[in-house]
Amino acid sequence: MRTKSFRSVVKNYRAVFFDAFGVLKNHSGLIEGVGNTFKYLESKGIPYYVLTNDSSRSPQELSNWYQKRGLTSITTDKILSSGMLAMEFFKTKLANGKAVAYLGTKDSAHYLETAGQKTVPISDVDLNDLEHIKSFAFLDDEGFDWNKDIDKTINLLRHKNMTVIVANTDINYPVNKNDISVAIGGLADLVEQILGKKFIRFGKPDAQMFLLAYERAMMDVPNIKRNEILMVGDTLYTDIIGGNKFGLDTALVLSGNTLPDNANIKIISSGIIPTYVCDSAVIEP
Amino acid sequence: MRTKSFRSVVKNYRAVFFDAFGVLKNHSGLIEGVGNTFKYLESKGIPYYVLTNDSSRSPQELSNWYQKRGLTSITTDKILSSGMLAMEFFKTKLANGKAVAYLGTKDSAHYLETAGQKTVPISDVDLNDLEHIKSFAFLDDEGFDWNKDIDKTINLLRHKNMTVIVANTDINYPVNKNDISVAIGGLADLVEQILGKKFIRFGKPDAQMFLLAYERAMMDVPNIKRNEILMVGDTLYTDIIGGNKFGLDTALVLSGNTLPDNANIKIISSGIIPTYVCDSAVIEP
Amino acid sequence: MRTKSFRSVVKNYRAVFFDAFGVLKNHSGLIEGVGNTFKYLESKGIPYYVLTNDSSRSPQELSNWYQKRGLTSITTDKILSSGMLAMEFFKTKLANGKAVAYLGTKDSAHYLETAGQKTVPISDVDLNDLEHIKSFAFLDDEGFDWNKDIDKTINLLRHKNMTVIVANTDINYPVNKNDISVAIGGLADLVEQILGKKFIRFGKPDAQMFLLAYERAMMDVPNIKRNEILMVGDTLYTDIIGGNKFGLDTALVLSGNTLPDNANIKIISSGIIPTYVCDSAVIEP
Amino acid sequence: MRTKSFRSVVKNYRAVFFDAFGVLKNHSGLIEGVGNTFKYLESKGIPYYVLTNDSSRSPQELSNWYQKRGLTSITTDKILSSGMLAMEFFKTKLANGKAVAYLGTKDSAHYLETAGQKTVPISDVDLNDLEHIKSFAFLDDEGFDWNKDIDKTINLLRHKNMTVIVANTDINYPVNKNDISVAIGGLADLVEQILGKKFIRFGKPDAQMFLLAYERAMMDVPNIKRNEILMVGDTLYTDIIGGNKFGLDTALVLSGNTLPDNANIKIISSGIIPTYVCDSAVIEP
Repeated sequence: MRTKSFRSVVKNYRAVFFDAFGVLKNHSGLIEGVGNTFKYLESKGIPYYVLTNDSSRSPQELSNWYQKRGLTSITTDKILSSGMLAMEFFKTKLANGKAVAYLGTKDSAHYLETAGQKTVPISDVDLNDLEHIKSFAFLDDEGFDWNKDIDKTINLLRHKNMTVIVANTDINYPVNKNDISVAIGGLADLVEQILGKKFIRFGKPDAQMFLLAYERAMMDVPNIKRNEILMVGDTLYTDIIGGNKFGLDTALVLSGNTLPDNANIKIISSGIIPTYVCDSAVIEP
Repeated sequence: MRTKSFRSVVKNYRAVFFDAFGVLKNHSGLIEGVGNTFKYLESKGIPYYVLTNDSSRSPQELSNWYQKRGLTSITTDKILSSGMLAMEFFKTKLANGKAVAYLGTKDSAHYLETAGQKTVPISDVDLNDLEHIKSFAFLDDEGFDWNKDIDKTINLLRHKNMTVIVANTDINYPVNKNDISVAIGGLADLVEQILGKKFIRFGKPDAQMFLLAYERAMMDVPNIKRNEILMVGDTLYTDIIGGNKFGLDTALVLSGNTLPDNANIKIISSGIIPTYVCDSAVIEP
Repeated sequence: MRTKSFRSVVKNYRAVFFDAFGVLKNHSGLIEGVGNTFKYLESKGIPYYVLTNDSSRSPQELSNWYQKRGLTSITTDKILSSGMLAMEFFKTKLANGKAVAYLGTKDSAHYLETAGQKTVPISDVDLNDLEHIKSFAFLDDEGFDWNKDIDKTINLLRHKNMTVIVANTDINYPVNKNDISVAIGGLADLVEQILGKKFIRFGKPDAQMFLLAYERAMMDVPNIKRNEILMVGDTLYTDIIGGNKFGLDTALVLSGNTLPDNANIKIISSGIIPTYVCDSAVIEP
Repeated sequence: MRTKSFRSVVKNYRAVFFDAFGVLKNHSGLIEGVGNTFKYLESKGIPYYVLTNDSSRSPQELSNWYQKRGLTSITTDKILSSGMLAMEFFKTKLANGKAVAYLGTKDSAHYLETAGQKTVPISDVDLNDLEHIKSFAFLDDEGFDWNKDIDKTINLLRHKNMTVIVANTDINYPVNKNDISVAIGGLADLVEQILGKKFIRFGKPDAQMFLLAYERAMMDVPNIKRNEILMVGDTLYTDIIGGNKFGLDTALVLSGNTLPDNANIKIISSGIIPTYVCDSAVIEP
């Protein structure tokens, strides 16, 4: 499939949204050469933001990861994570002394605590005393015992009706070049199917993720229109369809989930059509 | 199930979003007494908006329906329809001489034409000459021959890869007290399943519908926060879960889709929990 | 992908099951050369049967189609159709004066009538007098007005709870080299989704279709074991997975639904693995 | 809802198929009084069989459970489990020195070993040396580390294309009066969704489970017809729809999954209609 150079594409936009995994980084670390992309964008005065379906770590920690690898320009305020949508959701909820139970690491509970909520890991919940539990959050696939705590979550939600949120819509994620792992969104799907209930999900391709980033872009570029923003992603079903629907222009890059060999067939069979296809988001110096 | 009076609930909010069918109107016309609700809201200076998954008629026509029945305060600017999201989507697309093919009435094509697009009903498309067709829209379940035009749509979308939008997520709608009809969203589901493709859908419970209304509310009540708005609806799976997720407070009314007899069991089995349950949106004088 | 000659494969089996469309025939008629395959099988004394998800015509009519094209050996008793499973189902039901309503042609109602049932096309049903209707059958995608009769079916099934059968699991079928049409199984899916009900479906890949053929094969080859039978089909999701599950050996042919170019990727991505892959079911003289 | 006495129903049949959980036993043990049902059936010379979606234990062990509780008539040959279908499936496969990898306990691997297959638990599989692994079986939800072995299963099936069977279609099962646990069928659903592949599933409501029992009944009652057999179950979506489709008469009992309070609404909303509804399968002496 014929691709366009990322430089020739991105220069026409007033702001850029980047997906993280498969675009800026992969299992081995930063994608080589991507540092120069940010130098280019800064030289042109084009602001950029990183949109990630990651609720396992705080924006500060996510930003630190880039800082440590020399991408000093990716500061906390550049990061928009699905965990932040969960946080926004809970910010408007009364901190009435009751707690949000969760599946995830203590780190992932950061988002709830920042929103002023008390939290309790599912392992510490007493199913015979649910008076003080008011809602539930699927946050991260680590930090709990799958053999026990998935069943316990199911029974908690059968015993008491409560609002349930899923802070990451992804069903799996890559752990190295060859292997993947079930993501918390996949476990939430399993629980939802068994209960026959409907959870509230946050993350791409949902409009709220793009709205969060758009609101931030409008602070940097007043009156910027949606089609003046380029969404750059490696996944048709999250980055590209979500960006298209929100009215952004979209660039599919072939450095992650979608491979050069099958990009064309995936676009045709899915009917999800990016505005551009580029080899990667790398701009050579 | 114990319900709250709508007056006692609504008076605490700075703006109100109403679903139309099952809340303001039903198969027989306006729901009796609802006119007084609007008098009350105006006396209190609480602005209101109607959010409807209707792409069959223009906001002007939708507003006319209320005007004719004496609800003169429901002007065109109070109406937010899923068709308007489709229109917004196409506004950013180049009017490059190519046309949007559609399933629906000529009236429903209004939304596309307002966005500056040429339109062509599927019946007029020549499958052997698709050069000038650039995208497709599911608009209304009327205005075409189901025996021929559904198959023709499928074959059009097999022959040429293009962006497809669905301007109404509903799969059916009531036609009288006892009967329902397949909605255009249901036909789009059928086509999507057969093609294995992914269309872009507009309407509640999607965040973009609430965002459209929220942006309008902010023009009337600057700096209004999401939880200062009450979403009033009769359907858990569209109005209530969508409102909850967007951060609005929500009132389920029992005058439509959800009946007093099974409201409680539906809330428990779905896990979708409204902030309030009210008998109806009627406020007695 | 490397394929085996059909002759070298089929000679090791004691009976053969053929899918019809894409294996023996296509949109233009009989697949060229397939007549010789039957001569070969007869010379070797290997009995064969045709398994088809077709409920639009009787076995007699299906057989006639082959007879007219010179395949005189494909007699009525060689044909096993999903319509016959529907017929078997209704044979055990009391002919209690009540009728089975249906979507389809008069021809397709043959299966119900042979089972001793009174039938009534949906267009003749009076929704205000359902006393004499006892069940419903989806038979064929032709013979009715889609604009009216799909909605009427939905409302019939909302007004009166009854057993519903679908006599063809396929959701679409080819009408010529380039185009497909929605099959009755696709319309049944639409109605099922709107009603939230669960219909009884007949046809491949379901075990009952293979059982029907297996029982007939056992009359011709007493004590034949399942893995002594070869199922020949062009579709992984019906012929091959169904045959595999029933314990038959399976041969995927590339003359229909699955193309030489993507057979390998379809097998890998679906995880449905045929015992053999052959170019076609044709055996040269 | 009005129910019939089980005695008045069952006396008209020539054989009976019982579901196990919710019909003969529950979380506390045998359902009280069910022993007398078997005395009654024996006095009338009506043979009976137990059909269970259980692949965690061998028929011998399943039978022992009843024997220990005094139901001496439930011998191994009365038990038909979904694990036996998996066994039948593997019996026809060459024991070519390669192994079937599995998720489950050592006990659950019994079914594969009886079929002459080498087995290896997923924990012992070396993902870098898959030469000797030829297929995969989901057998039981116990006997492995969910945190590690579900991901390992996913990566095994990504690295090597192979036939995958699921020996129990159930997605959950009750562990006590209040709580449920994810069943191996639920975990298989999760893996299937992540891989986008299609597994071979065994168990009710699939026809093969009923066929296995029917073949056994025919040995005891030669020429018995399907509608001379009563299927007794507590679950509409497995026992009743499967029995109905296979041509059996069906009795829904209200001693398990379907409660007296909501039996009627479940029947109406699902459209799955049992021939009879009985309080339980208990026949008073």
